[in-house]
Amino acid sequence: MLPKKLSAQINKNHPWAVNTLKKYLSIPSVSAQKRGTRESVRFLTGILRQCGLKVRVIKTKSGHPPVIYAEKTVNPRAKTILFYNHYDVQPAEPLELWTTPPFKAAIRNGKIFGRGASDNKGNLITRLNAIKSFHDAGLELPVNVKFVLEGEEEVGSRSLPLFMKKYRKMIAADMCIWELGFHDENGRPKLSLGCKGIIHTELTTRTTRTDLHSSLGIIVPNPAWRLAWALNSLKGADERIRIKGFYQHVRRLDRLDRKVVRQISFDEKKKLKELGLKKFVLGLKGKALIQRFYYQPALNINGLIGGYQGKGNKTVLPKEAAIKIDFRLVPNQNPTDILKKLRRHLDREGFKDIGIKDATGYPPARTPLNNQYVKLVAEAQTKIYGKRAMIEPLFAASGPMYLFTPLMPCFCEGVGHPASNIHAPDENIYLKDFLLGAKCIAEIMNKLGGSKI
Amino acid sequence: MLPKKLSAQINKNHPWAVNTLKKYLSIPSVSAQKRGTRESVRFLTGILRQCGLKVRVIKTKSGHPPVIYAEKTVNPRAKTILFYNHYDVQPAEPLELWTTPPFKAAIRNGKIFGRGASDNKGNLITRLNAIKSFHDAGLELPVNVKFVLEGEEEVGSRSLPLFMKKYRKMIAADMCIWELGFHDENGRPKLSLGCKGIIHTELTTRTTRTDLHSSLGIIVPNPAWRLAWALNSLKGADERIRIKGFYQHVRRLDRLDRKVVRQISFDEKKKLKELGLKKFVLGLKGKALIQRFYYQPALNINGLIGGYQGKGNKTVLPKEAAIKIDFRLVPNQNPTDILKKLRRHLDREGFKDIGIKDATGYPPARTPLNNQYVKLVAEAQTKIYGKRAMIEPLFAASGPMYLFTPLMPCFCEGVGHPASNIHAPDENIYLKDFLLGAKCIAEIMNKLGGSKI
Repeated sequence: MLPKKLSAQINKNHPWAVNTLKKYLSIPSVSAQKRGTRESVRFLTGILRQCGLKVRVIKTKSGHPPVIYAEKTVNPRAKTILFYNHYDVQPAEPLELWTTPPFKAAIRNGKIFGRGASDNKGNLITRLNAIKSFHDAGLELPVNVKFVLEGEEEVGSRSLPLFMKKYRKMIAADMCIWELGFHDENGRPKLSLGCKGIIHTELTTRTTRTDLHSSLGIIVPNPAWRLAWALNSLKGADERIRIKGFYQHVRRLDRLDRKVVRQISFDEKKKLKELGLKKFVLGLKGKALIQRFYYQPALNINGLIGGYQGKGNKTVLPKEAAIKIDFRLVPNQNPTDILKKLRRHLDREGFKDIGIKDATGYPPARTPLNNQYVKLVAEAQTKIYGKRAMIEPLFAASGPMYLFTPLMPCFCEGVGHPASNIHAPDENIYLKDFLLGAKCIAEIMNKLGGSKI
Repeated sequence: MLPKKLSAQINKNHPWAVNTLKKYLSIPSVSAQKRGTRESVRFLTGILRQCGLKVRVIKTKSGHPPVIYAEKTVNPRAKTILFYNHYDVQPAEPLELWTTPPFKAAIRNGKIFGRGASDNKGNLITRLNAIKSFHDAGLELPVNVKFVLEGEEEVGSRSLPLFMKKYRKMIAADMCIWELGFHDENGRPKLSLGCKGIIHTELTTRTTRTDLHSSLGIIVPNPAWRLAWALNSLKGADERIRIKGFYQHVRRLDRLDRKVVRQISFDEKKKLKELGLKKFVLGLKGKALIQRFYYQPALNINGLIGGYQGKGNKTVLPKEAAIKIDFRLVPNQNPTDILKKLRRHLDREGFKDIGIKDATGYPPARTPLNNQYVKLVAEAQTKIYGKRAMIEPLFAASGPMYLFTPLMPCFCEGVGHPASNIHAPDENIYLKDFLLGAKCIAEIMNKLGGSKI
């Protein structure tokens, strides 16, 4: 139960938090464009110190943004929370679709708009507001806190694996609150316990020296046909991926998984209408649909490349073609293992000519549903937001969480909502959530501090 | 046997022919760019009259280039040859790949270069040279001659069907010499007796209102997967087209077909090397390869459209995708029938969502191998070019020949060679062939005039 004094202090600090977020949003920290790193580091080290934390700026590989590490130890025997956030954001383009400039925060209709508001600058400020409010109210922090703030999450967290290896001891904690989290369309807070893994790659093939007249297509192999057949060998209309051993490490749902699925609400009709779709794949509904979404790996086609793409016709037999694909992996699949199996599959099915180009990605990550702190975090959310927290086995997008879950449980908890427009124009959060978000973090700290576990 | 006097006259007229071709090549008659129609009509009516022909310029649909019709009747009871040519050419782009400007004829290494030299301005001038030479040598033409010259062959001969219907009687003849023809890499003249038909179209599908994040791909249908599966249902790696009834009207090879296949020479090794290819489809060689090339219909993929096509990765689930395809049809397949069967196939296989967009094309055309004049034309070629004519059942590309073959046999005979670069930069013909081409036409006329058939 949040002390009244603390709750009042968070209310009192709300204008400070809004103001701080506005300043933070004004920094164009676009890692893809190598912008705003220095400004971000200067701003964050200042704020972190203002909140009473010890700060280190840790260099990474040459040319990569540093990791900012901060901590406040109140008692070596107290529990410790680690906050993972990133100070970089997605590019703001297309700029013309923003109602107000992306790097000039604006408040409209109870929301604050700006690139990064939801992903994930707003969340960092709620965390700092919680810590600052304990201090300002004259209360001791109930837990030790640590922050790992990286600057290149949006471009693949290239430096983080080495950092995590090197500073494994320094960042040790009882739990990690992940960079972001969401509420559903009815304001029900979500607690996501993992991330799907991902592999990006391009299947490529080339047949002839040059493009040819398509009259030769009757005797000369066509690279686009090769890819169509290869794709079909990978997945048929039954949506099952045919790579041998692909599902080998996919966890079967246990009793707890099934219990979690039951408490997930998903407004199918509303979603179908929003998508302009008649039905989901395989006509799935209800529990089966939810199970598929959270527990099944996917193979997506992202792009088609080859031949003539202009208006009208061109009777060309292209010399080469490519298909951009991504795999979405679930615990305990491993990208390296899947790539090996993909190569073996293509070879075995007669597609030795098809290359697997520039494959990159992340493994999946998972906090077990029966982790001791799941209930604690969910109860804090339920109490603060006034709606029962919805536990999600994982978050459908991908991230570097796999570097943390071997060390501690990770919880996605934050102030996003379904129309937060992350990675899109007019990114925003509700100011109301921004205030409650700080209280929720304070509640989690309080509970963990008093936890007898 | 060509009279010496006539042969000498053709030699004597060669400079006139070269000069006339140079002027003709300087007219940028690019139908796709609506250029050069008036200039072509003025030039051709002048030359045709100079060669003693009666000329009519026949208007077609508004906005379309006219058909030029010309004739010379020497004797109503004599045999008649119709020459089909077109005065339009392909666009010359990319201009930077031409050694000399495309619309300024240039002579280098015994060849004349210019857009249309081989397809098909050079051929028209050989035909006119033959007729003019009879006249200049004081010899009567052994046959009546007619010319149909259209101005939009390169953009689909849109006005020709109506013209052919309306002037069916006027253009009646015993045979048609088609616009163009080729020699093989060893200088062996080819006699092609038909054209494959063609259908161009685009298979399209759309699933959602907007592009989505690919994490939704596990439950939202992907249009590119729909197309991959549809393509696979259309043709598998055995290269057999699976549309029900697709092969229903394909002629089986008879004894004569097999005889024709035997006299076709094709340097597989050379072609494979040129293409940068290890083997032809299905590993075919020899007669089986030749039979497939001339007697089998094809389904080609010309282009792939959809999703992200740039560098690197984008985890997008595209809202729509499309595949540009062409069918190459053989006698007696019919485009309308095939399109119906394609639609029925897609519906039956569960692809009602896949559209068949902007389908256009030509039916195939065929002069029977046992036509009475095949031997006559082949013998003329063999005599003039000094190498045994190679009879091809058809020409692998497509054209409006189907409008003529119901009325008369059509023969592709002309002065192109394998490196003529039709539809490409540095289009050219050999001057030597340009001279012999006129003699070959004269020989054909002579033989037909004396023919007792």
